[in-house]
Amino acid sequence: MAYNLVSLNELTEQFASLPGIGKKTAARLAFHMLTASPEKAKRFANSLINAREKIHFCSVCQALTEEELCPVCSDKKRDKSVICVVEEPMDVLAFERAREYNGLYHVLHGTISPLDGIGPDQLKIRELLKRVAEPEVEEIIIATNPSVEGEATAAYLARLLKQMSVKVSRLGFGIPIGGALEHTDEITLQRAIDGRQEI
Amino acid sequence: MAYNLVSLNELTEQFASLPGIGKKTAARLAFHMLTASPEKAKRFANSLINAREKIHFCSVCQALTEEELCPVCSDKKRDKSVICVVEEPMDVLAFERAREYNGLYHVLHGTISPLDGIGPDQLKIRELLKRVAEPEVEEIIIATNPSVEGEATAAYLARLLKQMSVKVSRLGFGIPIGGALEHTDEITLQRAIDGRQEI
Repeated sequence: MAYNLVSLNELTEQFASLPGIGKKTAARLAFHMLTASPEKAKRFANSLINAREKIHFCSVCQALTEEELCPVCSDKKRDKSVICVVEEPMDVLAFERAREYNGLYHVLHGTISPLDGIGPDQLKIRELLKRVAEPEVEEIIIATNPSVEGEATAAYLARLLKQMSVKVSRLGFGIPIGGALEHTDEITLQRAIDGRQEI
Repeated sequence: MAYNLVSLNELTEQFASLPGIGKKTAARLAFHMLTASPEKAKRFANSLINAREKIHFCSVCQALTEEELCPVCSDKKRDKSVICVVEEPMDVLAFERAREYNGLYHVLHGTISPLDGIGPDQLKIRELLKRVAEPEVEEIIIATNPSVEGEATAAYLARLLKQMSVKVSRLGFGIPIGGALEHTDEITLQRAIDGRQEI
């Protein structure tokens, strides 16, 4: 006879459907929730529904927001002449943590990836071009990841944007701060040499 | 200005409160739920509440169940003369997966651990002694983990149970199947030699 607890199995499946969570971890997490207080389970459930309902994409830059505009787009102190183009909403949070950049963002929500059937039309590129057409925009920083898809998307965007009389730049790549030359891979070293700067 | 999304932060905190989930993983999981369909978020939330509400401890063996009795205790085909004593409800599932054992279980819900302030009274030992007093019970297999606390709890239980005219045994420990002698630690090897059996 199988020891079958329907509701426990269901919860385990839900945890296992999360990225990077295997079957054993999912079982452990589900079990943890069973032994936690009922209030904790309810708080968790409420945060899930709450976050999913409240958070949507900013109508301008497509980043995450609980309002009509995201905190960056609605901030009057930001420099509206620069737009940093990133792949995912999480990338915006990474830049904001660095506290270095004071311009605006634009989230593509993916990269061009023909193998996965994702072309330019599936990304928020139309929305970007509309923003770039505004006279106040002077520079676009393309900050897609240094992956095959990220580079292809950057090249595609650069070609499109250069026709629009706007300065187009790409994020600097090279050896990460705190990294050791000895352990740096060849491609990163190549990019570090290409991107060398006079001091 | 901080890029602050209250509901996203809350959900991230909930994920981070799970055992073995760090801050970065929690952020990734919370973000995954935002991009998942609203139905998925609702299903997840419902399974959380559902599992927490439906599942409780079996009134006899203290394992997890959705009914009054767990599937094992309510199964008339199980051998009611043997009780296997385990630390946690998950241990019952592990035994059931092995499909070898046909007796009953008793879940202690922990181990004696003076450093954490857990004495015999905090465990389900009283409930176990009541069951052992029944005339049909002939053998108790102590299956606590081979940790310091598990061994201490096993020794404590063995002393108690031996006064009750019942056979008391401990799970066999030794080299795991598929394991290599070369990589087996000293204590496991010691236990394997102590537990050697004639062939």
